[in-house]
Amino acid sequence: MSRSLEKLIKAFSRLPGIGEKTAGRLAYHLLKCPEEQARQLSEAIGSLRENVFFCPVCGNITEEDPCEICRDTRREREVVCVVEEPADIRAIEISGSYRGLYHVLGGRLSPLDGVGPDELSFDRLKQRIENSSPQITELIVATNPSVEGDATALYIQRMLNGTPVRVSRIACGLPAGGHLEYMDSLTISQALEGRHNL
Amino acid sequence: MSRSLEKLIKAFSRLPGIGEKTAGRLAYHLLKCPEEQARQLSEAIGSLRENVFFCPVCGNITEEDPCEICRDTRREREVVCVVEEPADIRAIEISGSYRGLYHVLGGRLSPLDGVGPDELSFDRLKQRIENSSPQITELIVATNPSVEGDATALYIQRMLNGTPVRVSRIACGLPAGGHLEYMDSLTISQALEGRHNL
Repeated sequence: MSRSLEKLIKAFSRLPGIGEKTAGRLAYHLLKCPEEQARQLSEAIGSLRENVFFCPVCGNITEEDPCEICRDTRREREVVCVVEEPADIRAIEISGSYRGLYHVLGGRLSPLDGVGPDELSFDRLKQRIENSSPQITELIVATNPSVEGDATALYIQRMLNGTPVRVSRIACGLPAGGHLEYMDSLTISQALEGRHNL
Repeated sequence: MSRSLEKLIKAFSRLPGIGEKTAGRLAYHLLKCPEEQARQLSEAIGSLRENVFFCPVCGNITEEDPCEICRDTRREREVVCVVEEPADIRAIEISGSYRGLYHVLGGRLSPLDGVGPDELSFDRLKQRIENSSPQITELIVATNPSVEGDATALYIQRMLNGTPVRVSRIACGLPAGGHLEYMDSLTISQALEGRHNL
């Protein structure tokens, strides 16, 4: 067996959801496909970690500072959608049902996993609201509909208690335990539409 | 959205069995995982096409000429297992149930797809048998059990008619651990047809 091939199969099978057999299938495909296609994949993985960093404003992944969404003057700057991960922004953007800004928490409150308020970007969110111009008037908390996601939403609502900022929560149109990242666009846009005050 | 990320998602989704969503999941994983892991995958894909070629003897993929299996003096050199693709060799080797040599056809006879005898390595197989020392005495045709795979096996049997080489075909039937209830009718009828005395 070729060592290069074994190495690639091992590298593939470290990816989430890719088992030994799928890894083998992918590797053999890359042996047979046009060389250009293999080169593109290799370079795309290589340049990903070189070019991409987190937007210092919203925490989205970006290649420019600030990110495309934060820069976009056509977007509503009074509404900020709070998500757990950058992947969630992508899902919402693809749904095309949201025109405001974003804020990435970097996860959700989960004491059992050792994730407390200090591990998430709450402070940066609060500062961002205080310094916002025009004033941010609504936060749509789009953490995933789980116990931890709900607790995180409640934490934000309490943090901003007494401020003029309205804190809303996306509707539970998403099945409990599901993940924004994998949801279809219609469910996402319904969940945004059905948001309610906390 | 980051262009590096979009490029990678596009490159991933060109792989077989990887859709847009899985591609996104893999790409975001590579953003979050240890940088070392992403680098290894990128390099493994890159070096695959640089280092790997087809063994001029058997057609297996290899980094040395001839390949590991063809070089291995402990293997039986009188038996050759004929397979469609190098990936089939890997599957058989992992099963650990075969100690002979291999021959890769590069596909199977399939007139509808424009694959005739000239597209496969029949000539090289015939020459290999003629020049073999010790003499090859058995060919196990392990093309896949399909109409095309069966036709390919028959073609080889006819090609070697009148020579002392015994041409055999792998057995068709229920896979180990399989359930009759969920098996397709063709497999069941082949399993019945191929029954043997106990």
